[in-house]
Amino acid sequence: MKLKIKKEKLLENLSNVSKAISTKNIIPVLSGIKFDLANEGLYLTASDNDITIQSFINKKDIDEIGKTGSIVLQGRYILEIIRKLPGDVITLEVIDEYKVWINSNTSEFNLNAINPDDFPQTNMNETKTPIIIRKSDLKNIINQTAFATSTQESRPLLTGINFKISNDTIECTATDSYRLSKKTLKVNNNLDDNFNIVIPCRNLLELMKILKDDDNNIELHIFNNKVLFKFDNILFQSRLLNGTYPDTSKLIPDSFSIQIKAPLQQLYDVIDRASLLANDKEKSIIKLETKDNTLLISSNSPEVGRVEERLEIIKETENDITISFSSKYMMDALKAFKTANVVLLFNSDIKPIILKEPAKEDIIELILPIRTY
Amino acid sequence: MKLKIKKEKLLENLSNVSKAISTKNIIPVLSGIKFDLANEGLYLTASDNDITIQSFINKKDIDEIGKTGSIVLQGRYILEIIRKLPGDVITLEVIDEYKVWINSNTSEFNLNAINPDDFPQTNMNETKTPIIIRKSDLKNIINQTAFATSTQESRPLLTGINFKISNDTIECTATDSYRLSKKTLKVNNNLDDNFNIVIPCRNLLELMKILKDDDNNIELHIFNNKVLFKFDNILFQSRLLNGTYPDTSKLIPDSFSIQIKAPLQQLYDVIDRASLLANDKEKSIIKLETKDNTLLISSNSPEVGRVEERLEIIKETENDITISFSSKYMMDALKAFKTANVVLLFNSDIKPIILKEPAKEDIIELILPIRTY
Repeated sequence: MKLKIKKEKLLENLSNVSKAISTKNIIPVLSGIKFDLANEGLYLTASDNDITIQSFINKKDIDEIGKTGSIVLQGRYILEIIRKLPGDVITLEVIDEYKVWINSNTSEFNLNAINPDDFPQTNMNETKTPIIIRKSDLKNIINQTAFATSTQESRPLLTGINFKISNDTIECTATDSYRLSKKTLKVNNNLDDNFNIVIPCRNLLELMKILKDDDNNIELHIFNNKVLFKFDNILFQSRLLNGTYPDTSKLIPDSFSIQIKAPLQQLYDVIDRASLLANDKEKSIIKLETKDNTLLISSNSPEVGRVEERLEIIKETENDITISFSSKYMMDALKAFKTANVVLLFNSDIKPIILKEPAKEDIIELILPIRTY
Repeated sequence: MKLKIKKEKLLENLSNVSKAISTKNIIPVLSGIKFDLANEGLYLTASDNDITIQSFINKKDIDEIGKTGSIVLQGRYILEIIRKLPGDVITLEVIDEYKVWINSNTSEFNLNAINPDDFPQTNMNETKTPIIIRKSDLKNIINQTAFATSTQESRPLLTGINFKISNDTIECTATDSYRLSKKTLKVNNNLDDNFNIVIPCRNLLELMKILKDDDNNIELHIFNNKVLFKFDNILFQSRLLNGTYPDTSKLIPDSFSIQIKAPLQQLYDVIDRASLLANDKEKSIIKLETKDNTLLISSNSPEVGRVEERLEIIKETENDITISFSSKYMMDALKAFKTANVVLLFNSDIKPIILKEPAKEDIIELILPIRTY
């Protein structure tokens, strides 16, 4: 393998695939990046057996292809070396069976490499009928649900985001069993099948890091045990979580006895301030009280003091409510909205709190209250 | 105590003194900020017994002084509360003996406070003849020496920066016994006495955080066991380290058998790259070799590979040298310079390496070599 390539081009693509480099280092080759130089261009691949990322550099973006071939280089070294090399054009050449010579200006590296045959087989096949959505929609879905996933491995399914995909909607749900976030997206698919899959949230967050801020499409190729995201010059593959995601549809009540409408940012700010003196640091419990068109948010820490915040709201039903909950969960949920106002729905102080946009059901946030007596 | 004050004014001054809040919390009152409201304005004071910071807000910057008096509020709470309060003007009032009511718009906090009599006596006296230097000069001195102090408490004096102050110079030295950094500043003092003091480096770094980027003067008031920095509306007091700082003047040789001149930034970059493959991660040892007007920098890690960098230099003496040292220490030392070129001086591969600016002795950097055989 021998090529000359612009530093910035190589760096950008190495940086993309580096998100899949294993940091655990149990199997040395998984901490490597595989270079496959073919006549059509350079494929860079990294895999930690959980996610696999492949980035392709077309031959037109390569200054010179001297000799095709494959090699695996240690990921964290090659990325840092390329980043710090002087000059605009870099030469990479396999000089010995598993040694690579890297040269740019007056800088020369001789790196020990790894046999490319030891690299895991990465099947990056595509389906015939991918689901196509806009990058920005996928980013929104992940941003608006990921926070509600569980971080505890005791219930692995809850560490993922559930995607239910049909011909007209994509419904994404995340829950840690104390709160739930659901986002529904209207789409126009042409599928033979519906899908109901759970993608590890951690992997989706890695995907987010390499999704650029343009409005191009992204393709989802769904298989039995994996999903492949295809966009730009990148293939990003994640395993799926096995098992049946809990049916959360029955958790959200059909009717509510109390409904209020509040300005989103101001509600966030009063809860943020009230949380400063919340007694239980971890749950950060605060109290919400409606009194006609005034919302009272308060918290109390015997050692530090007490805070009371007032906010003008619109009460759309007659009853009042007093209810306590985690300010952290409420702030996470509020961050999912982008509207000026948010609607809060209650039935009683021991029933779930629901948040949604006025007159829309795209985003549903559910928070369980906390009993304080 | 009762006052109305603009949020931003109070926040800025609380933020200044908060750098002295004790994080160890052994004595609760030391995690507090003392408010002293007098007719002339508001004094805010925090102290962890190691540093004491006092910030003064003149009455012209206070919207209303209702009643003078003193109280101590828990530092981390009051800073966060004031930062997050809505509205531009805040009312603070001592409502009970040790309770404070804080109000801004629709937000109300009732905070438990601490008896101001429990706060340590903070004597912030000034001397009659302070040393006056420009803020930017003091910042440079600290930036160019602090990195060379020791972080090990086993030799407490080496955790400080040594200031030797006479009528015409301020000489600052830091060393961890493996490297040394010395900065000399020409001044025009009018002192009765010379000073030779050691200020804890940690405290100087806290001072740096609240030193604004203007070119006003700062006053140093030096006492037997403490130093007071006076600038803007702030008094910053630090204890001094006890003991006699080692005499480092003899460590720097008078003559050198090898002298080279190298471009600063390029030298930094080649060392940075060579350090990527340095074998010993902690010391990160690399090798330097002169061959006429070429400098070779190399390092070798049997597991990862080998790097060799070449740099054109000017060799100002005849002999060549091969020497090994910590790339980390060398990079730290190079960062102290702001000139285009730097001069490196050697006697042998087991004698100290000296760095300085061409034709100037303002900054002297010393690094001990490391034997690799």
